[in-house]
Amino acid sequence: MEVNMDNRGIQDYYADRFSHCYGCGRLNRQGLQLKTTWEGDETVTRFSPEAFHTALPGFVYGGLLASLIDCHGTGSSALAYVRSNRITLKGFNAPRFVTVSLKVDYKRPTPLGTELVIRGKIKEITKRKVIVEAVLLAGNNICVSGEIISVLVPEDFGSTPSGRE
Amino acid sequence: MEVNMDNRGIQDYYADRFSHCYGCGRLNRQGLQLKTTWEGDETVTRFSPEAFHTALPGFVYGGLLASLIDCHGTGSSALAYVRSNRITLKGFNAPRFVTVSLKVDYKRPTPLGTELVIRGKIKEITKRKVIVEAVLLAGNNICVSGEIISVLVPEDFGSTPSGRE
Repeated sequence: MEVNMDNRGIQDYYADRFSHCYGCGRLNRQGLQLKTTWEGDETVTRFSPEAFHTALPGFVYGGLLASLIDCHGTGSSALAYVRSNRITLKGFNAPRFVTVSLKVDYKRPTPLGTELVIRGKIKEITKRKVIVEAVLLAGNNICVSGEIISVLVPEDFGSTPSGRE
Repeated sequence: MEVNMDNRGIQDYYADRFSHCYGCGRLNRQGLQLKTTWEGDETVTRFSPEAFHTALPGFVYGGLLASLIDCHGTGSSALAYVRSNRITLKGFNAPRFVTVSLKVDYKRPTPLGTELVIRGKIKEITKRKVIVEAVLLAGNNICVSGEIISVLVPEDFGSTPSGRE
């Protein structure tokens, strides 16, 4: 049942029209280009902030941390939907989720200068909605925790002449 | 009791060591340079996203919206603290707050290509903690609502040789 993703993220399987997101779109050259994968029953996203992603000096900006939790949540939701519905990923057929609600708790300051790892667990999955619990780690320290509620985007969004592409 | 801020944001009154934030630091040249002010009993921040701040095409990236709510919250908290404690703003003596918890609800897609206005109300203020309720508007539409809990940073943070500047 596990999908072999050839070390790519679920974001590499989104249709082009779903791939412009600043956080995780492979077609957004100015964006963060986040990639989310399975590690067993956990979802994982990794990101190394730039020096300018400062909050107070030495620490990562909370807005970026919220963004990482957010995009990790939509990627995790897509992964969970693929697994739950036994979809075979090929070409650009991954489902696309968008966040409807985001909760972020800043447990301790997140240090700049190290890779951050965001790990997710699927708390709930229904026909069109997924709830993901996430933690963001710097080394072994949980710096941030969060919960994301996301919903499935209709497959034909943006694909017609009346769409936005 | 109202402070005359000469059309500047509270962020223009932070000490240099508190002014590197990607979201609202006046010294972060790559950041968003957000400015938060009073309008009566509401706090206000305005921002026009760039074209690359895309979520799905035509709409603003949720991570940026969370960032706007976040920095609006810390700025609003500082404004509320200044008003509550009757501090006279001069030089760089504004208090600095950091977010400990952030809740964001995406009510409807936020359109790209228009100025966004974030408005805040002070829900609670104690000696070191402020809770701010915020809405983000595009035109007359509330696209996002949120709540931010923030705490006061000790005044001597980063100002000693053992600090991070």
